[in-house]
Amino acid sequence: MSLKKIQAEVDKWINQFEEGYWPPLSMLAAVMEEVGEVAREINFLERFKPKKPWEKSGNIGEELADLIFSIVCIANYYKIDLDKEFDKIMKKYATRDINRWRRK
Amino acid sequence: MSLKKIQAEVDKWINQFEEGYWPPLSMLAAVMEEVGEVAREINFLERFKPKKPWEKSGNIGEELADLIFSIVCIANYYKIDLDKEFDKIMKKYATRDINRWRRK
Amino acid sequence: MSLKKIQAEVDKWINQFEEGYWPPLSMLAAVMEEVGEVAREINFLERFKPKKPWEKSGNIGEELADLIFSIVCIANYYKIDLDKEFDKIMKKYATRDINRWRRK
Amino acid sequence: MSLKKIQAEVDKWINQFEEGYWPPLSMLAAVMEEVGEVAREINFLERFKPKKPWEKSGNIGEELADLIFSIVCIANYYKIDLDKEFDKIMKKYATRDINRWRRK
Repeated sequence: MSLKKIQAEVDKWINQFEEGYWPPLSMLAAVMEEVGEVAREINFLERFKPKKPWEKSGNIGEELADLIFSIVCIANYYKIDLDKEFDKIMKKYATRDINRWRRK
Repeated sequence: MSLKKIQAEVDKWINQFEEGYWPPLSMLAAVMEEVGEVAREINFLERFKPKKPWEKSGNIGEELADLIFSIVCIANYYKIDLDKEFDKIMKKYATRDINRWRRK
Repeated sequence: MSLKKIQAEVDKWINQFEEGYWPPLSMLAAVMEEVGEVAREINFLERFKPKKPWEKSGNIGEELADLIFSIVCIANYYKIDLDKEFDKIMKKYATRDINRWRRK
Repeated sequence: MSLKKIQAEVDKWINQFEEGYWPPLSMLAAVMEEVGEVAREINFLERFKPKKPWEKSGNIGEELADLIFSIVCIANYYKIDLDKEFDKIMKKYATRDINRWRRK
């Protein structure tokens, strides 16, 4: 897995600017803005004219990528290794949730 | 870059269960729950006792990974190639935002 | 209408404490926490066992009130008259949205 | 207190349309959209050029009212009496939080 590369790319992008990373609560507000845009897109896709999964919107992919960008900024600010954390939660789910749903 | 591997791992996890992916608006609600937990963590870290970036909390990394998991579920449902979308937004930012901030 | 009374009650509550209103971005993070709890409740109500509207959960009402409280804090901080703003948006909707949906 | 009047006004507005109330998860997504707009406004107000509380923005009041509207829709759908719930949470806070902050 390599969220590491994405974290490095985001870090390189941010570090070309004087402003650098914003304060965490501002970055969080930016995450909320992006979630709002994903919500608008999904509400449009699902509300009045549900589409089949493969007829994806032109925008939902971009909105999700914007959202991930805004989250990686927070991870970088706090020096978090997302690959390691992702491994950890997959193990947590495997322990905690394995009997929560019905196995095929 | 390889969000691809993460998308595959999440897909494998979800597909072991009868329930499979939830409907998109339920997955979105799950994203909102996870953002709420990230918000709680950051408010705790920043509000009353601001810490230095390197003194990261024990939980913020896990909350961010949970949030990314919930977003990757939505991406998978809509058959989105996140690596491709991420490349696209990095190019969009490079065009749109390059003069928005002060270059070092 | 009288969001005024609610604004006054929240203000009285906050002003008994030394801390007073938190900085706006912290109050915004608190709103996000509350939205996350509403999302959890609605996902629970709607996902696996949809109920009829009148069989309301024991908690959704409380979560919505918590959320409104957190929003009124922000309104008070910015000295916003919510009754006036609410009147304004109802007029905006009446102009903007009157042909957006099908009249009965 | 009378969130009751606001609930009645929203109900009257919604009920003139064939569509009526949307499904709860769609209304929740609409709440998230509105929270995203509030986040954008507050990030703008607070991030780079913090203003004094009394120099309120032209838009934050409207965004907060839009957000309250979207929440009242959910409350109405679930037949929640917001005045009663608000009374209950104010009592809950008075019991739970009275020693959480420093009294003046």
